[in-house]
Amino acid sequence: MPMDRIRLARLRDRIMSPEAAAELFRDGMTVGMSGFTRVGDCKVVFFALAERAANEPLQITLMTGASLGSDIDKVLTDANVISRRIPFQSDPTLRRKINAGEVMFIDQHLSETVEQLRSGQLAPVDIAVVEATAITENGGIVPTTSVGNSASFAVLAKKIIVEINLTMPAGLEGLHDIYIPTYRPHRLPIPLIAPEQRIGLPFIPVDPEKIVAIVVTQKADSPSNVLPPDDETRAIAGHLNEFLGHEVTAGRLSASLQPLQAGIGTIANAVLHGMLDSPFRDLKMYSEVLQDSTVELLDEGRLSLRRPRRSPSARYFASACWAISRNTSRVSCCVRRKSATTPK
Amino acid sequence: MPMDRIRLARLRDRIMSPEAAAELFRDGMTVGMSGFTRVGDCKVVFFALAERAANEPLQITLMTGASLGSDIDKVLTDANVISRRIPFQSDPTLRRKINAGEVMFIDQHLSETVEQLRSGQLAPVDIAVVEATAITENGGIVPTTSVGNSASFAVLAKKIIVEINLTMPAGLEGLHDIYIPTYRPHRLPIPLIAPEQRIGLPFIPVDPEKIVAIVVTQKADSPSNVLPPDDETRAIAGHLNEFLGHEVTAGRLSASLQPLQAGIGTIANAVLHGMLDSPFRDLKMYSEVLQDSTVELLDEGRLSLRRPRRSPSARYFASACWAISRNTSRVSCCVRRKSATTPK
Repeated sequence: MPMDRIRLARLRDRIMSPEAAAELFRDGMTVGMSGFTRVGDCKVVFFALAERAANEPLQITLMTGASLGSDIDKVLTDANVISRRIPFQSDPTLRRKINAGEVMFIDQHLSETVEQLRSGQLAPVDIAVVEATAITENGGIVPTTSVGNSASFAVLAKKIIVEINLTMPAGLEGLHDIYIPTYRPHRLPIPLIAPEQRIGLPFIPVDPEKIVAIVVTQKADSPSNVLPPDDETRAIAGHLNEFLGHEVTAGRLSASLQPLQAGIGTIANAVLHGMLDSPFRDLKMYSEVLQDSTVELLDEGRLSLRRPRRSPSARYFASACWAISRNTSRVSCCVRRKSATTPK
Repeated sequence: MPMDRIRLARLRDRIMSPEAAAELFRDGMTVGMSGFTRVGDCKVVFFALAERAANEPLQITLMTGASLGSDIDKVLTDANVISRRIPFQSDPTLRRKINAGEVMFIDQHLSETVEQLRSGQLAPVDIAVVEATAITENGGIVPTTSVGNSASFAVLAKKIIVEINLTMPAGLEGLHDIYIPTYRPHRLPIPLIAPEQRIGLPFIPVDPEKIVAIVVTQKADSPSNVLPPDDETRAIAGHLNEFLGHEVTAGRLSASLQPLQAGIGTIANAVLHGMLDSPFRDLKMYSEVLQDSTVELLDEGRLSLRRPRRSPSARYFASACWAISRNTSRVSCCVRRKSATTPK
């Protein structure tokens, strides 16, 4: 265990086993967990919780950023641990229980969950469980490959359990830009008007005394399997490139287009992949997920990383992508979410 | 004709008859007209255009802010003047022609029209026709009882026809807050975070040389007939007051609630009317329309008009509401539209 993973020294005596951390849960608690589209979720604490529940029935309300990987939803469902689930999930076992009426589920716009927590419409988070690359000198939590709702869960929770994942490269530190909006009725606009801006902190700011347990793991993410482009998705990409090229010719767009906002999945990945063969340059992009094609566009210099010497944003992002692309063959990590907290 | 209605003196020789102004239209033109939910529309120029079209077939693409009053859509439809209509209409005669495929129609989010004009996705506006209370010393156009898309139509059009409506009280000047967003890709957030803010001008800023005709009219608005509250709508208002009162008791809202955003029609009017019997005070409100109940809430001091001596906003608004409520028995005038140009 490298000590630079927990730089606030007095927290090191809170390192414990997953089984000991699982003892902190009580029946009926509301739990907020990191994790978004199969990456950056907490693994070992919840497996230990499922084992505990085999002997001692216990149910929780489970909130996440989005879907989880590593069969966590399945394992918790089989152990009958989940009574309520929000705002999204994609596990077939859990889906069956939801459709049978055995688990209460809200399939919610991902940005609404935290708004409802902040306003007291949802019961408060008892325990936040957040996977981390490191804990800073001040007790700030550096997330791993996703953010989603993790920051707000940690800020709002009474207690926090941190899973330090040693398989996550230390270079991830500096990638994240954690911005906590002001609370209503004093909410101000999120001051973000360009993808390359940084408006927040590279860690989740929390009172370190709320961190009641630290669990160390080496269990890797189980990211999505994105299919490579085929004739059909290549054709879609071709149509889009043709359309955008026409707009450039007509003078309505420059060769840098306008900032892209990419979705998730095989088609979105293939469409962005197709931009490798386009005449477009210095592209900018908003995305709630970063897929393989994004890293390819960065490698090829299509996506803009302007002012690489001076901009901390570009430096952070380039080094983090380097770290990610050497760490996983399939990349799927949360980057900038535009208007992350404003429901439509 | 009081001269203070056209304060830029050199424009006074552009006063002409509706028939002369109607001669400025050419077949195939795109025309942007003021008008939103039956108020502030241009009346006499389009009646003259319909008469002209009886002898000389002529068709236009007609854009507005929303639906029109005074049977304008019906008269133009009967005269076969409309080939395309965007973004909204509510006239049964025109609806039949649209459904028969004789008029092309896009039923569009009201804020998308101008965005598409700005980006060149829609053909440019040849002539904007805007009803006005007055023209300022600098040639700025002071709208009457609606704004909607009028400001952008006038700013973007090649030529402008102004209908000065003498039935509109001069006190309307100062009510409007005209803000033209920066154009993409350099768009900045609309800097509005509270209903009482003023961020723009009390007139539409245009090059006065674009004003090619001024027509004077005394034809009044034909506003909507909003039904008074009945047992059913009173019950709806009661449920809402009870719910909001519960939130105040639970400490999640103050007695001023949070800023209201009211819709349009009989139910919205009845619900706001019901707030006269509520314990709520110092309310604030966003609305794309102002109905009778809003004026009642202002009269009763329920809606906040803070700092009446110092805030030009409050002074303008109070005097304008005074002018409106003495001018029409049924009030329906456009006030602050929140995020007016941001489609969902």
